[in-house]
Amino acid sequence: MRFFSDNAAPACPAVMAALADANRLDTAYDGDAWSKRLDGAFSDLFEHEVRALWVPTGTAANCLGLAALCPPTGAILCHEQAHIEQDEAGAPGFFTHGAKLTLLSGAGAKISPEAVEQACARVRYDVHQVPPAALSITNATEYGLVYRGAELAALGEVASARNLGFHVDGARFANAAAFTRESPADLTWRAGVDVLSFGFVKNGGMNAEALLFFDPERAEAVPRLRKRSGHLLSKGRFLAAQLLAMLDGEIWLANARAANAAARALADAAGAARLVFPVEANELFVRMTADEAASLRGQGYDFYDWAPGEVRLVTSWDQDMGAVERLAAAIAAL
Amino acid sequence: MRFFSDNAAPACPAVMAALADANRLDTAYDGDAWSKRLDGAFSDLFEHEVRALWVPTGTAANCLGLAALCPPTGAILCHEQAHIEQDEAGAPGFFTHGAKLTLLSGAGAKISPEAVEQACARVRYDVHQVPPAALSITNATEYGLVYRGAELAALGEVASARNLGFHVDGARFANAAAFTRESPADLTWRAGVDVLSFGFVKNGGMNAEALLFFDPERAEAVPRLRKRSGHLLSKGRFLAAQLLAMLDGEIWLANARAANAAARALADAAGAARLVFPVEANELFVRMTADEAASLRGQGYDFYDWAPGEVRLVTSWDQDMGAVERLAAAIAAL
Amino acid sequence: MRFFSDNAAPACPAVMAALADANRLDTAYDGDAWSKRLDGAFSDLFEHEVRALWVPTGTAANCLGLAALCPPTGAILCHEQAHIEQDEAGAPGFFTHGAKLTLLSGAGAKISPEAVEQACARVRYDVHQVPPAALSITNATEYGLVYRGAELAALGEVASARNLGFHVDGARFANAAAFTRESPADLTWRAGVDVLSFGFVKNGGMNAEALLFFDPERAEAVPRLRKRSGHLLSKGRFLAAQLLAMLDGEIWLANARAANAAARALADAAGAARLVFPVEANELFVRMTADEAASLRGQGYDFYDWAPGEVRLVTSWDQDMGAVERLAAAIAAL
Amino acid sequence: MRFFSDNAAPACPAVMAALADANRLDTAYDGDAWSKRLDGAFSDLFEHEVRALWVPTGTAANCLGLAALCPPTGAILCHEQAHIEQDEAGAPGFFTHGAKLTLLSGAGAKISPEAVEQACARVRYDVHQVPPAALSITNATEYGLVYRGAELAALGEVASARNLGFHVDGARFANAAAFTRESPADLTWRAGVDVLSFGFVKNGGMNAEALLFFDPERAEAVPRLRKRSGHLLSKGRFLAAQLLAMLDGEIWLANARAANAAARALADAAGAARLVFPVEANELFVRMTADEAASLRGQGYDFYDWAPGEVRLVTSWDQDMGAVERLAAAIAAL
Repeated sequence: MRFFSDNAAPACPAVMAALADANRLDTAYDGDAWSKRLDGAFSDLFEHEVRALWVPTGTAANCLGLAALCPPTGAILCHEQAHIEQDEAGAPGFFTHGAKLTLLSGAGAKISPEAVEQACARVRYDVHQVPPAALSITNATEYGLVYRGAELAALGEVASARNLGFHVDGARFANAAAFTRESPADLTWRAGVDVLSFGFVKNGGMNAEALLFFDPERAEAVPRLRKRSGHLLSKGRFLAAQLLAMLDGEIWLANARAANAAARALADAAGAARLVFPVEANELFVRMTADEAASLRGQGYDFYDWAPGEVRLVTSWDQDMGAVERLAAAIAAL
Repeated sequence: MRFFSDNAAPACPAVMAALADANRLDTAYDGDAWSKRLDGAFSDLFEHEVRALWVPTGTAANCLGLAALCPPTGAILCHEQAHIEQDEAGAPGFFTHGAKLTLLSGAGAKISPEAVEQACARVRYDVHQVPPAALSITNATEYGLVYRGAELAALGEVASARNLGFHVDGARFANAAAFTRESPADLTWRAGVDVLSFGFVKNGGMNAEALLFFDPERAEAVPRLRKRSGHLLSKGRFLAAQLLAMLDGEIWLANARAANAAARALADAAGAARLVFPVEANELFVRMTADEAASLRGQGYDFYDWAPGEVRLVTSWDQDMGAVERLAAAIAAL
Repeated sequence: MRFFSDNAAPACPAVMAALADANRLDTAYDGDAWSKRLDGAFSDLFEHEVRALWVPTGTAANCLGLAALCPPTGAILCHEQAHIEQDEAGAPGFFTHGAKLTLLSGAGAKISPEAVEQACARVRYDVHQVPPAALSITNATEYGLVYRGAELAALGEVASARNLGFHVDGARFANAAAFTRESPADLTWRAGVDVLSFGFVKNGGMNAEALLFFDPERAEAVPRLRKRSGHLLSKGRFLAAQLLAMLDGEIWLANARAANAAARALADAAGAARLVFPVEANELFVRMTADEAASLRGQGYDFYDWAPGEVRLVTSWDQDMGAVERLAAAIAAL
Repeated sequence: MRFFSDNAAPACPAVMAALADANRLDTAYDGDAWSKRLDGAFSDLFEHEVRALWVPTGTAANCLGLAALCPPTGAILCHEQAHIEQDEAGAPGFFTHGAKLTLLSGAGAKISPEAVEQACARVRYDVHQVPPAALSITNATEYGLVYRGAELAALGEVASARNLGFHVDGARFANAAAFTRESPADLTWRAGVDVLSFGFVKNGGMNAEALLFFDPERAEAVPRLRKRSGHLLSKGRFLAAQLLAMLDGEIWLANARAANAAARALADAAGAARLVFPVEANELFVRMTADEAASLRGQGYDFYDWAPGEVRLVTSWDQDMGAVERLAAAIAAL
């Protein structure tokens, strides 16, 4: 049973149905009826004018978003554990033509307003140093922690004061929203967020992510960059249809709630002492000896060794609750 | 009825079935069972060791391939009407970090060995000029012409003599192969081709193209570049499955034959005098007055105005032969 | 005797004296007294507010200027014989992060307003094609022809209508100004020119060129790009001092007049029939058999074989007029 | 009296004489007699085959060197206080097309072999992470500390084991060599160094630095990159002549010794308690209250506030020893 990652789960039924439905002739690229509905659908959800573009990967979403916020001569402030720093093969450097990632620290891969302020204060804004131009955070973070609206607003304030574009890597934005029960608006533009990479793939999509701009001016150059980086698919309707299908009837939220609930059940079974971080979304980092890990694997559970004495469990939208309960019992019995 | 382009046609049934079949858990990225079968499947088809990578667009296939062949300081020889020059928003410049496209002329968007030789002969190989490092042709060309194996071999000879990597943009490689009835091997590595962008999307795929390397060493850096450019999808099995489904039972060839046959029927109806170029694949460039074009459009046919007095018709894998015959009759009746 | 090129001539006495004079302690980079005088000195000469930066090469001047005018996603219109296309090793691609050079034709390496207009008219301004963002011409051209103020104004008008930044590669701007006797203002901003690479090295400088912006806003990012590309020298006063020395007493103009006069004398001796182009600046392209060329070389004259039956002669600021007259006689005697 | 930096000092007499001497006609770029002597002169000094290129700035030297060692997809390990990280406006990202700087810690801006090993050990060498490809250190460091030959050899060993190209930013290499009294060979290739940016400008040059490759193969692409980045000056002989003049008669070493001796005198006067780091080259970091600093400034001494309670003093090749002694006395009297 898989608790390895959420990025290989099946596509959810609504997505499969939407693909079948979209399998009709329409205009190429993003001129089709589905693609044209995206701005409206996301604007409705976010209660604000949104410019929405589909892209096939989270890396593309993040890096096109960052390229829109940061010139080649600028720096992007992010956490030292951020996905853009750790797991995108240097894609931000590629898309921004060599902008710099300036790394911040913070427990649970969270960034504090103070850390942002200090990073800016350390820089001489002359031609010799690289001035910060953007702030990028991940919500939920790489360690499964969630920024609340108020935390985001505090970050947004520093970003605004320091003239930083504010990007959120929301590969698990749905899990964050499901946890906080705050509105998508409160978790983004109301807090000063300019750009959101809104993840769908980990949450039941097949191969479509949404890149959202809350200020259409920021988005102006992005359609061209999307094409130039090879991310303008000919049959874009198949991507747009996935996003629309998951917005419809709030499947994005239902899927995230299911994943979060599975993580919650495992966290309760593990108990606070074993948890490296509070479990807020769909990831658990659990203290465990090598023997304990081996014992769970012997029972058929698949997960990632994160660090010595620490494993990572990730739950998915489609997690079988029977398997979750059995794993919870197995953890409790360690 | 659509004769506008082949890049918006539906996905073919085998592809839809393959997506449904692949909708099971497997490893992420390209670690899954489907992706792992790609090298073997393409090696079988090409009778040669092939390194095969899925990517979501033809632009990504072309530009990752070119980046593997040409350093930032080099030039890529291509036709002035090549897709990489005309219709990819400068993506080759992005992926190669500023390599140059050196443009060649030639009827029907075809490049001759002499044109390649002359372009190389014009260059001083000192530090002031940009030395050609790659040759990129399109087969079938942007005007629907097809290079035969012998023509390719002649180009391959010059490429080899001039130390040029040889890339084929095969967005419509299937149509070319269907026309020549030559083997995929004869149209590629046996003629000296190093890299092929093998198109599936225009030919009945949904969102998967194949990037093939006939010399695995040339491919070494490419998986990393694919990730770095945002083209490593999490659920790669859905791309691999499309390619495998179309290789299976030679659906790729059957689809191309259908599209070519439709074009052939229209070409015969139009007659040689109206045709700007011989019709070899699935594109026709037809001389037509504005009134004639309007008349056809009035009868419900949709196509592209290519140039004054010239329209472009493109047929697809799923073209309804009834509609084709009616359009053929309408053209004949002009 | 050298008629090979003007880019290896000695530095003129005023420059050498200025270097000696600047060999005192001052602030580093461009914070010194000499560098701070540049804006004013060039503003005086051009009768307009000018932002002036020293750089060590013409390639740096051209490419920093172009990077200020053209985003990575844009195209620069230039002549197919332009130095930026032919002789800068692809530097424009490097500095602009992959912007495209769109090549225009025209006799004597001159570009007409019609050619610019046609190049723009050919482009679809959608996300698939690369929109022209800048126009770059060379004055005097690579074939020694000179644009007059009225010609420049006509180009400036098209540039403005098409929203193109207008750059002049003035490696031999001094020779052009000496020829037309028009004011520097008439040859630049009054004609709509935004950026000028004002060459000093070929004209008696040692290693300083001037990059001038007639709209300070265009220059805003350039000091940072200069640093980022390694062109901010620590002891910038030695570059600034060269430029100031040549502006002082109009040495730049005197030097250019001397070079032009030498070319004029050779042109008169050669006669119109031998001249491939009218001789307006300090370059001659002369029809000559291989035997004739060999005969001149036998007499000690050094020059460049440009094309079969054609040689190039370039005169310099320091050309010995005795040698010029002897060569003139030798040519006349061929 | 200036103790602010060594990068604005005058050029030394030998350099000025060499410029006058080189002010004769020769071939352009690096085809002249002076440039052609560089490889030999540096090979003699380093007792090894050296490929030597002049460039006008240390940033150009560093970044061309790094671009030769690290592909766009790789990482360069360097100290978090390294000049390439702190003071080059992101130039490494520009020249390498977006390679990453991975930052290491270490007292006095020195890097230990363990820190290099740990940085490599932390990386997964898969397509998601950025693999280290080069190690760059600064000798003398940004805090004026000097790596001895044995320390360098230990770093060279790790670099070799981890397949890292080894670059030394030697903006103050002369000061380091003067301090250790070890041979240039022992401080470079014998310790496994592949590329050295050998600084001359801070040490009495005007505008020429040397970029040295101890393995000519590593240098192969560099002349083209030098041109492409605008660093191939037309009248290169004026740069080569500066370097040759300073190698001749070991002026480079004599100048460095003078600067070091001045720093030594100040360090002795300050006493160990005030020194943040041992003084090994020509930089001092001195603990001092704001009042003390003000008092010194009141006496006419010019220096940099480095951090609260800490100032930086830098001595130059031409430092007047009278002024040094007076400052030493003033410091001792604080």
